[in-house]
Amino acid sequence: MMDPASFKKQAREELYELLRIPSISTDPAHKGDVQRAADYIEAGLKRAGMTRTEQIRVGEGHPLVYGEWLGAEGRPTLLLYGHYDVQPVEPLEEWVSPPFEPTERDGNVYARGACDDKGQTWILVKAVEWLMQRDGRLPVNIKFLIEGEEECGGESIAAYVEEQGERLAADAAVICDSEMFAPELPSICTGLRGIVYGDLVVEGPRTDLHSGVYGGAAPNPVMAVAEILTALKGRDGKISIPHFYDRVAEPAPEEMEAWARLPFDEEEYRAKEVGSPELTGEAGYSVLERVWARPTLEVHGIRGGFTGDGAKTVIPARAVAKVSLRLVADQRPEEAVEQLKSAIEGVTPMGVRARFEVLHAGAPSLVNPDSAFIRTAASAMEEVFGNKTVYMRSGGSIPIVGLFDRHLGIPSVLMGFGLPDDNLHAPNEKFYLANFDRGIEAVALYLERLG
Amino acid sequence: MMDPASFKKQAREELYELLRIPSISTDPAHKGDVQRAADYIEAGLKRAGMTRTEQIRVGEGHPLVYGEWLGAEGRPTLLLYGHYDVQPVEPLEEWVSPPFEPTERDGNVYARGACDDKGQTWILVKAVEWLMQRDGRLPVNIKFLIEGEEECGGESIAAYVEEQGERLAADAAVICDSEMFAPELPSICTGLRGIVYGDLVVEGPRTDLHSGVYGGAAPNPVMAVAEILTALKGRDGKISIPHFYDRVAEPAPEEMEAWARLPFDEEEYRAKEVGSPELTGEAGYSVLERVWARPTLEVHGIRGGFTGDGAKTVIPARAVAKVSLRLVADQRPEEAVEQLKSAIEGVTPMGVRARFEVLHAGAPSLVNPDSAFIRTAASAMEEVFGNKTVYMRSGGSIPIVGLFDRHLGIPSVLMGFGLPDDNLHAPNEKFYLANFDRGIEAVALYLERLG
Repeated sequence: MMDPASFKKQAREELYELLRIPSISTDPAHKGDVQRAADYIEAGLKRAGMTRTEQIRVGEGHPLVYGEWLGAEGRPTLLLYGHYDVQPVEPLEEWVSPPFEPTERDGNVYARGACDDKGQTWILVKAVEWLMQRDGRLPVNIKFLIEGEEECGGESIAAYVEEQGERLAADAAVICDSEMFAPELPSICTGLRGIVYGDLVVEGPRTDLHSGVYGGAAPNPVMAVAEILTALKGRDGKISIPHFYDRVAEPAPEEMEAWARLPFDEEEYRAKEVGSPELTGEAGYSVLERVWARPTLEVHGIRGGFTGDGAKTVIPARAVAKVSLRLVADQRPEEAVEQLKSAIEGVTPMGVRARFEVLHAGAPSLVNPDSAFIRTAASAMEEVFGNKTVYMRSGGSIPIVGLFDRHLGIPSVLMGFGLPDDNLHAPNEKFYLANFDRGIEAVALYLERLG
Repeated sequence: MMDPASFKKQAREELYELLRIPSISTDPAHKGDVQRAADYIEAGLKRAGMTRTEQIRVGEGHPLVYGEWLGAEGRPTLLLYGHYDVQPVEPLEEWVSPPFEPTERDGNVYARGACDDKGQTWILVKAVEWLMQRDGRLPVNIKFLIEGEEECGGESIAAYVEEQGERLAADAAVICDSEMFAPELPSICTGLRGIVYGDLVVEGPRTDLHSGVYGGAAPNPVMAVAEILTALKGRDGKISIPHFYDRVAEPAPEEMEAWARLPFDEEEYRAKEVGSPELTGEAGYSVLERVWARPTLEVHGIRGGFTGDGAKTVIPARAVAKVSLRLVADQRPEEAVEQLKSAIEGVTPMGVRARFEVLHAGAPSLVNPDSAFIRTAASAMEEVFGNKTVYMRSGGSIPIVGLFDRHLGIPSVLMGFGLPDDNLHAPNEKFYLANFDRGIEAVALYLERLG
């Protein structure tokens, strides 16, 4: 077999190949690229020794890549999850190196998907391959399920898990799609926010109008979006959707105490991660509480009217705002959508029609850290990183955790190797290469110890 | 000489040639096209018999096209103004026929600039050419001044009128860049709103951020734009900029009475022109007062974040809103800019920096209709159209009127031949061809009567 150094070198080269495929799942123009990435993943699973692989297609969706090795009778079965699709890359001009040409700088590899989630998915694949090469077998049974729609709603995996759950029967899921609390601090994520994402569509005049001729009498849909948004969320960060907070669960006191002990410097976070003059959000909650345990309403962009260089004096006929709610336990996406729709109806100004069209939704999830699968993961990471593993939450959304819980009845172990400054969903996404190597070691050690 | 029918036919064909040139002055990519349109205008002025023509260049701006014929000693001198540049064409997909392929439908020609202002500019050129062909001379002295920056701020003409005003000495200006109150109702415009147009730039995080990971702690610049805009203008249409209304002059009672007698059907205006569920604007004022005699604040579009199809969960680093104020007599653009800037400072939320960058500004203007130049224009239009000429205002801005008043000390006669449904600045801009013909007749008759 290959020596560890050569194995790691080849693992990086393979990852870079994968990163060169622009598998942007939200953009229909990249459908072929998403397929190429799926093929690449499937080939990787075969090389890792999976005895059966398959691309599962649900309707018109991007394929789920499945692979299994079930030769460890009497041992636990793990469902390994990752995703091979990536976020769009705009604004392109802010990338230092092109998003689909992986480029090494300062011990990192820069590319869209480097961390989220091709880098972390490849950790799972290569950890399994390493054990297989070394021992000719695996210490546990493995089912890989790697999806291509995580960034566009994950409809295929949701339908598959719901309908074909028995094929995925396992004792626990391992999800490699989260981050470490700090460099060198191995972390397991125990809570994720849910999400409702959609288009707030506001229509006013029949056609774009001259703002001189009609300004003062014609409604302005962009202004109406501003009026709706500010009516839904105050400057104090409080969301004014009726009953929105009714189901929000407070974290347990011991969880809050553990968070307070984490090495978190609010000023450094503001200056180095966020980079804004001040932090914002709901008064009365710490930053970690605000991003981990409180729901949010955000607007991601507004389309409509004129946004080019220079001036165009137009009242747009329509505006579409991309709006999301992040949800926390025990909020329910379907209920939040209804609450949002009825709140929008209540605050829509005169002269326009407004509606909210859901693009995707996912439930929040909480994992109980008191399980052997999680404790073993924590100890494996501790050994590889040389520091005690901490438990954190994430403000992001991995709806699959809730799906695995609800339909398969299994806990998810969220072993994350990303870093807080990895620029997920933003220009100059990167992955710290040392964590790629240590991730492979930690996952391999975890599987060994479970076996 | 040509018979009137052939002359009109050729005039249309020449106009269509001009309409095929995409002279979008706000877009640097079209600089060459703007120049081609200037050349076309200059050639037209030569054909119309101007003894001297010139392209005047101020700095890096688009050329002013000048042409003169000064052979009518002892007669008045008229300064004829139009513009050969046009607005951008987005959203392109809403055009029924391509914006730069003039297409006749139902007695109209559809093209960007058909009415605003290539069609109306060409009326002036062809009226003069008609008289010159018929008589071998003109009844009055003529100075043409046709600009190429009306849609992008008009800096060149402003500088030229200020600095070289003596070369433009005249008794009155004739401006053909406004509309008729209704089809068949010859109209002279006696008041125009001023404008301040600029970019509201709001900056928050250093880079686009993942809205899951940072939502709840990071400021959102698009939301901040919404908060600033709604703080500057209420749902009641009142602008909350301190002292903004201090200089707003009420129209004279007799002007208000004349407006009340105009054939205006608010419901028809809402349904056919605006096409929105309701009209909006300041309570306590009629629609005509709101669009002619009251200032406005409008947002024309917001750039920033993700606006493509599908979902991207990003908190944008920055957002730029295109914002304008329309001003009425006796508001002053410089003062309004300062008021707006300081109001923005006062309402900018935590966590972001905001600034307003002026792109262009122009003063409002009022013309006293009690002048021989205006009364003669009214009677010429009345004769050609067969209806009594009405006096109206326009909610739009033609800053040149204020410049001619201030620096040349001459009144402007605003003879407009556009129609209310000509879709200025919008998709499917058109010009009613009968008005193109009658415009040429009316302007020619006006010049004859003045002579």
